[in-house]
Amino acid sequence: MLDKKQFEAARKESLKYFKKAGIILTDEEKNSVEIADFGLSDLYKIGLEVFVYVNTTKVCAKELVMFPGQTCPEHIHPTKNGKSGKEETFRCRWGKVYLYVPGEKNCVPRIEGLEGHKEYLKVAHEVVLNPGEQYTLLPDTWHWFRAGEEGAVVSEFSTTSTDDQDVFTDPRINRFTKIKE
Amino acid sequence: MLDKKQFEAARKESLKYFKKAGIILTDEEKNSVEIADFGLSDLYKIGLEVFVYVNTTKVCAKELVMFPGQTCPEHIHPTKNGKSGKEETFRCRWGKVYLYVPGEKNCVPRIEGLEGHKEYLKVAHEVVLNPGEQYTLLPDTWHWFRAGEEGAVVSEFSTTSTDDQDVFTDPRINRFTKIKE
Repeated sequence: MLDKKQFEAARKESLKYFKKAGIILTDEEKNSVEIADFGLSDLYKIGLEVFVYVNTTKVCAKELVMFPGQTCPEHIHPTKNGKSGKEETFRCRWGKVYLYVPGEKNCVPRIEGLEGHKEYLKVAHEVVLNPGEQYTLLPDTWHWFRAGEEGAVVSEFSTTSTDDQDVFTDPRINRFTKIKE
Repeated sequence: MLDKKQFEAARKESLKYFKKAGIILTDEEKNSVEIADFGLSDLYKIGLEVFVYVNTTKVCAKELVMFPGQTCPEHIHPTKNGKSGKEETFRCRWGKVYLYVPGEKNCVPRIEGLEGHKEYLKVAHEVVLNPGEQYTLLPDTWHWFRAGEEGAVVSEFSTTSTDDQDVFTDPRINRFTKIKE
């Protein structure tokens, strides 16, 4: 759980990355950047900073900021009651991101420093995304990703986001950040 | 109709705008920027430079470059055979864009210099988009847009693009650019 001060510091820090990537947000938007610690209270290791441009019944577009070495834990967007899970394309805009998907293990996954969590990171086919590189994930595909040592800014183009339906391999995770009052 | 030299010059010119907006394309992508003159052979007045990041059966994301004062002519993405037309969100990244949609006329539309075409520009409710500002269009909504005097770079987040089904008010228009050999 983050306290208000930590939450505000992370939001402020995230804005530096939007700026580095040349992405302009309005003042109102800057106050709407979501800070996700996935309930693990170790934001700078496991977390994500998200700005949602649009999320309609059909289409979603977001910008993801990742702090240096920050990990977005392994999850899927499941098909449910006949409704297809989220299809998403990640496009790296700034920095570097290591994306892990199902397939032949082709690397030593970057799990260092993730004690207590790394045992939940199962898929190990690495796709490295530098600025201008992208990858499309079909629904129901397990994936996790970690920023390089400078951090990363990643655009996500997808079908509707329904974050409450995401399924994580780490059973401790709660997708929605609680702020300590 | 553009000749090869004009086509290549326009593509090269468009890359300057991607750069101004801080948008990184790979070398391969730079060679795939679409130059659309809408068959009117007056590209710098009526045209669009487009890079498609992704266009699946569900989702599309593009970057639009507009040269100074360039106009994208009035059109709709129609619902056809029960399949909903394209829903799209425009987000200005750089420069300025004047978007015209149905609704109360609230401006003098920027039609100067568009002799022979301006009579086809009907909708006149103006939405001005500066960097960081965006607007979502539902399917079957007539719209046209024109860049400000510096040009513009605009992200488009949408459902699947099916450009061949677009309907234009100017009957002379052909969505697909022909290159003179």
